[in-house]
Amino acid sequence: MYKIVLVRHGESEWNKLNLFTGWTDVGLSGTGVNEAKSAGAVLKANGYRFDVCYTSFLKRAIHTEEYILDALDENWIPVIKSWKLNERHYGALQGLNKAETAAKYGESQVQIWRRSFDVRPPELDHQAAEALHLLPQYQNVPYDELPHGESLKDTIARVVPYFETEIKPQIVSEKNVIIVAHGNSLRALVKYFEKLSDDEIAAVNIPTGTPLVYELDFNFTVLKKYYLGDEKAVAEKEKAVANQGKKI
Amino acid sequence: MYKIVLVRHGESEWNKLNLFTGWTDVGLSGTGVNEAKSAGAVLKANGYRFDVCYTSFLKRAIHTEEYILDALDENWIPVIKSWKLNERHYGALQGLNKAETAAKYGESQVQIWRRSFDVRPPELDHQAAEALHLLPQYQNVPYDELPHGESLKDTIARVVPYFETEIKPQIVSEKNVIIVAHGNSLRALVKYFEKLSDDEIAAVNIPTGTPLVYELDFNFTVLKKYYLGDEKAVAEKEKAVANQGKKI
Repeated sequence: MYKIVLVRHGESEWNKLNLFTGWTDVGLSGTGVNEAKSAGAVLKANGYRFDVCYTSFLKRAIHTEEYILDALDENWIPVIKSWKLNERHYGALQGLNKAETAAKYGESQVQIWRRSFDVRPPELDHQAAEALHLLPQYQNVPYDELPHGESLKDTIARVVPYFETEIKPQIVSEKNVIIVAHGNSLRALVKYFEKLSDDEIAAVNIPTGTPLVYELDFNFTVLKKYYLGDEKAVAEKEKAVANQGKKI
Repeated sequence: MYKIVLVRHGESEWNKLNLFTGWTDVGLSGTGVNEAKSAGAVLKANGYRFDVCYTSFLKRAIHTEEYILDALDENWIPVIKSWKLNERHYGALQGLNKAETAAKYGESQVQIWRRSFDVRPPELDHQAAEALHLLPQYQNVPYDELPHGESLKDTIARVVPYFETEIKPQIVSEKNVIIVAHGNSLRALVKYFEKLSDDEIAAVNIPTGTPLVYELDFNFTVLKKYYLGDEKAVAEKEKAVANQGKKI
């Protein structure tokens, strides 16, 4: 049996402000730091240890992973960072307030952008796209590979192949793997693990800073799935994520 | 021309207590955190950016590297951790107070252990050695490779080959490299870069949290060497390191 742990980064400064974040590289809020530390503490309390950690290029995930490895006293394990695990690219919506966007475009349009499977947000304009390609972390990525605005389907199309080629072989070789990433890059993995339909994944909300454990058989079929931590707190967090697109 | 940056971790909890630390995995002190942040700030102020970071398995170096990458907004670069960059293994002296050890064995004996080229400290006893080999970070290292107490010569014998096989090729391929490590693993590199004699390296003290830049020609001959930061502060720090072995 394999076991894999997924953790969504703690609350970021922009989660707090209810802004579309996507690839904007914002840090954790004070609450987010505490969530990251709690994620580490609950993993430690449950006896988890890891051989390798995967994370994105975005500091809110990297900092979360650092706090977790601190708590586990496993700072020394390899941490492999890839843009393939970045959050869904939210295109031209990045930086806009979710509630204001709902007031302007309608709550249902925002809900479509947030939860539809294959509808892309408005893409980055030319100038913003050029700026993205010039960032040192992305300048070696082939031009056509770098997204300017993604649907969940697009995100899945980069996350799942990365998982299959880079992460799955580690799991198969019996390494204990933790993936610290983002709401949508993790939803991509949840859909893939659980073989959810395009409709079913729309209803899935992953709470921040709450370790999600999958137990898989040797064919990668899910045997068991559970969050670590207080059940009531987990349920409240899932609800909070679902409500983010509502008008205030 | 190549450029490489070395940084000794900020003050640790045990530097502060004047204990022999070696491979004991202690965290940074409050002062050490500030030194790490300052190292990041001075690198940023001087326009440095890096493609890859090397560090040890010890958290005082890892945390220093994390603060530096935070300051540079380069959290996303690969960080490669290796026990080969760990501090000199101080054997049975680890955990002993430097001043007390000086009072007990004599200041000159402590100075020999601290500054001689090829005199090893008393080695770990059997039980302590077994405990070291059982730590998850070291359990896959072949038994004979893991030190139980090192002279500087021993440290050089693991650091320099690691540099030559793992780090040098990155520099040759024009990557900007930063190495965040320890007093003695960095002295090993200083001796190697500057072709210092066994006697000359004894007088070299590397201050904590102060970026040391080497400019090298394509044959790895040193063209220039300098610390980044306020000159007077650097000189005072070098002196403080030299005085650590003195009786209080």
